[in-house]
Amino acid sequence: MRRLSQGIDQLHAHLLAMSGVVEQNIYRSVASLKGRDEALARQVLTDEALVNAMEIEVDEQATRLLALHQPVACDLRYLTAALKINTDLERIGDLAATIARRSLSLLQSPAVKPLVDIPLMAQLAQAMLAQSLRAFIDRDADLAREVLLADDAVDSLRDSVTTELIELMKREPDTVERSVDLIFIARSLERIADHATNIAEDVLFLIRGVDVRHSATRVA
Amino acid sequence: MRRLSQGIDQLHAHLLAMSGVVEQNIYRSVASLKGRDEALARQVLTDEALVNAMEIEVDEQATRLLALHQPVACDLRYLTAALKINTDLERIGDLAATIARRSLSLLQSPAVKPLVDIPLMAQLAQAMLAQSLRAFIDRDADLAREVLLADDAVDSLRDSVTTELIELMKREPDTVERSVDLIFIARSLERIADHATNIAEDVLFLIRGVDVRHSATRVA
Repeated sequence: MRRLSQGIDQLHAHLLAMSGVVEQNIYRSVASLKGRDEALARQVLTDEALVNAMEIEVDEQATRLLALHQPVACDLRYLTAALKINTDLERIGDLAATIARRSLSLLQSPAVKPLVDIPLMAQLAQAMLAQSLRAFIDRDADLAREVLLADDAVDSLRDSVTTELIELMKREPDTVERSVDLIFIARSLERIADHATNIAEDVLFLIRGVDVRHSATRVA
Repeated sequence: MRRLSQGIDQLHAHLLAMSGVVEQNIYRSVASLKGRDEALARQVLTDEALVNAMEIEVDEQATRLLALHQPVACDLRYLTAALKINTDLERIGDLAATIARRSLSLLQSPAVKPLVDIPLMAQLAQAMLAQSLRAFIDRDADLAREVLLADDAVDSLRDSVTTELIELMKREPDTVERSVDLIFIARSLERIADHATNIAEDVLFLIRGVDVRHSATRVA
């Protein structure tokens, strides 16, 4: 039986690879909209199947490690956190695909306005995801806390995008469909940031849990 | 050490209690809007804290069962599925709270239209949640499949609500804010149905996984 630490290293590699594809999909989904590039949006939809396959693989791998090594205490919590994070990554992948689908629909008509805040939201959300995963792998509480702080910036950008588009719809009723699509894209990016926040919260809970229960678990 | 089956019975009881609160919150969040009743929406927001506490309790309980009994094969998969379902329940609770907040904001102004499809969506989503949890506890694949079928009905109601509201915004620009809120409420209900669908898919995977791997796991 191989050592658990080797298994955890492999799990890290899989989660990082999955996060890499998902981060790229967040970028592409919004770049396709801003650059009016259908091909980029289609790549996101192609890669969605890959993300789903990676989720199943990570799930299997984490469950196998639980069955083989029957870890207790901090390794057990670490693996159950990996299962949760895996779900968050897959849902972020779904959201990037949702954005890509709305982008393809928006590209059928002229743009309602130049995009500034939405690409900025995408950039922030992508960075939050990368940081939250890094915080998990390095068990870095400071980095996890940075992710929580960044979430406020994303929320406030979402508010200003929404307010602006509501005004636009009132002034120009023929932009209603496209504006609603853009509001949903902003909302999807906010939800991506929320998932990154969930991951960061899991990391903090994991670190606190390990600290608090360390002495007790050694007895068990 | 108590038997694992007793622990699983307790876990069922906790998940059912949590689902009960969440189902009631779905109902109340939309009833507050339809009946223009602020108190109902406020109850949802009060109960949100309870749902969050229940999530932590179920998480702890499932992790404790993993550590104490170190189950393999089908019990291991069952407990990791419980962890996932717990997350879905908490997210559904969040969505009911989101609806309640939008309802409170909508109750500050006159209604834009009589509500028919949104209460129907809430009823369907609530039933899907109850059925998916029942399917998990009874390991009932047929019931899980019923949940998957119901999801299409919710999606099609969401489409018709959205189309209707987009037309309304074009005709009457002063309904834009309220219509956007209603579109988001319909979207939140669709997402609640999606979480119930996730639970049903986990149940089917669990049952298939157990069937397929049954002979191999007995050797392990």
